[in-house]
Amino acid sequence: MEPFEVHILGCGSALPTTRHNASSQVIRIGNKQFMIDCGEGTQLQLRRGHIHFSFINHIFISHLHGDHCFGLIGLISTFSLLGRTAPLHIYADPMLERIMEPQLKYFCKEIKYPIFFHSIDAGKHAVIFEDNTITVESLPLAHRIPCCGFLFKEKPKKRHLLGDVANIYNIPAYMRQSIKEGADFTTPEGDLIPNSRLTREADPSRSYAYCSDTLPCPGNNSYIKGVDLLYHEATFAESEKERAAITHHSTARQAATIAKEAEAKKLVIGHYSSRYDDEQILLEEARAIFPDSYCATEGAIFRI
Amino acid sequence: MEPFEVHILGCGSALPTTRHNASSQVIRIGNKQFMIDCGEGTQLQLRRGHIHFSFINHIFISHLHGDHCFGLIGLISTFSLLGRTAPLHIYADPMLERIMEPQLKYFCKEIKYPIFFHSIDAGKHAVIFEDNTITVESLPLAHRIPCCGFLFKEKPKKRHLLGDVANIYNIPAYMRQSIKEGADFTTPEGDLIPNSRLTREADPSRSYAYCSDTLPCPGNNSYIKGVDLLYHEATFAESEKERAAITHHSTARQAATIAKEAEAKKLVIGHYSSRYDDEQILLEEARAIFPDSYCATEGAIFRI
Repeated sequence: MEPFEVHILGCGSALPTTRHNASSQVIRIGNKQFMIDCGEGTQLQLRRGHIHFSFINHIFISHLHGDHCFGLIGLISTFSLLGRTAPLHIYADPMLERIMEPQLKYFCKEIKYPIFFHSIDAGKHAVIFEDNTITVESLPLAHRIPCCGFLFKEKPKKRHLLGDVANIYNIPAYMRQSIKEGADFTTPEGDLIPNSRLTREADPSRSYAYCSDTLPCPGNNSYIKGVDLLYHEATFAESEKERAAITHHSTARQAATIAKEAEAKKLVIGHYSSRYDDEQILLEEARAIFPDSYCATEGAIFRI
Repeated sequence: MEPFEVHILGCGSALPTTRHNASSQVIRIGNKQFMIDCGEGTQLQLRRGHIHFSFINHIFISHLHGDHCFGLIGLISTFSLLGRTAPLHIYADPMLERIMEPQLKYFCKEIKYPIFFHSIDAGKHAVIFEDNTITVESLPLAHRIPCCGFLFKEKPKKRHLLGDVANIYNIPAYMRQSIKEGADFTTPEGDLIPNSRLTREADPSRSYAYCSDTLPCPGNNSYIKGVDLLYHEATFAESEKERAAITHHSTARQAATIAKEAEAKKLVIGHYSSRYDDEQILLEEARAIFPDSYCATEGAIFRI
């Protein structure tokens, strides 16, 4: 199967620490790369992770707090210095374009590639990106300002043509696509070979959901039901539950409860408050509810 | 003597590398801290260097290229999260305020401290900051956009009162300041004790000059003559001399020539092009002209 990977570039929260960078991830699906959030220092994290700058064409910004978007202007400038010509698509609250406009005008005069801002309505569950193999949906979250999560889903895949059977029947190349899509085959002699004898089941369509920053939002469970991997913020431990509620963040236990209720296959927690010197307590609290929980950390790659 | 230190937070150039951060320094003079330039990731470098955020009240921006100012908005936000109430003064091209205005308005709504932008005319040599013990002068540089260096100078210091002599003559506390400033002392018996017998020479007034980004500007040599420490950009080696000229940068040899002609006591080079995997060639070329040359590196502290 083609790779479907989540590269963690930063999983800290608002206050910088020497242990965690501001939020950013790269989702690699096949030969495509998508970025989610772009806190300050993201471009350095890309360097450290040996991730190709030029393969990033789509950046999704969950919300307009600095730790999720202050790295954008530097990344855009660096793309330009590296000679980029391919368009860059940024999906965000429409305010982002207005805020960035004077910066782009001044700092990016010599830029040779177009930037397209796509407006997200953070309050809505909607398909915000689609290509031939994947869709990205917005997931309404509950934060202090408009904020949405993202659900990456592979589209249903084609069935696998059985190579030896295809040879026996001498199936011509031009027919192979339709057979992969479910068609039967009729031999030159007029025999109908049912698709089930020609193909085996398609690979499963995998999915990944990113939910940060937010209070727990069980309203999204139906959208993310059975998701292969859920990244959910867990800014606080249970002892800071009230603080989580006030600041519109989640505890590790709440993140795990969402994972359990949504029947996620795996949970990765992140967006740790700077108060934690290590995240063991968060991991333990998550695992008590949802055993298949893991801690995000800079440089980690989660494979789906 | 009180500390006079240059803390290197970043000494790379436009393209980020895993070895060097974008430009930023903290100048510590006594208990005061001044920042020069603030590239992306500066606040993380402050954390790594265990430098107190709250002691930084004045930030000097040499010019408006991203690698010298993209870290400002993150730093300003973090100051706010840390509960800062003290005013912050930013000295920069007036365009900076206009570019940052929409960002400050959106991201820093809850900010509890005032930010004052002080406009620098990069084409002029002028005193742009002054307090009771130091002055900061702008140094006109030659870059692709308006750009200036900075000269930090301690004001002339008071002479040292000789403790044992002061005791012998029983000099009252209220007279000590004027004696340190050069006054003689008349004993109750009417004997005049000349200042030279009461005091010894004042500590020398130290100085530091920052010249980046720029072509060599010998026109500044008279201003920085005899400077204790000169930080001069050396983006390129001599083999890239033409590229340096085109991009309005300096070679290491040119930086060293400035240091020699200005009779600087010590040279630190920085702002290395990302093409160099190590800076040995730059250091060698500088030392061939000016032996007391050193390479800036992240985390280094140069004491004056």
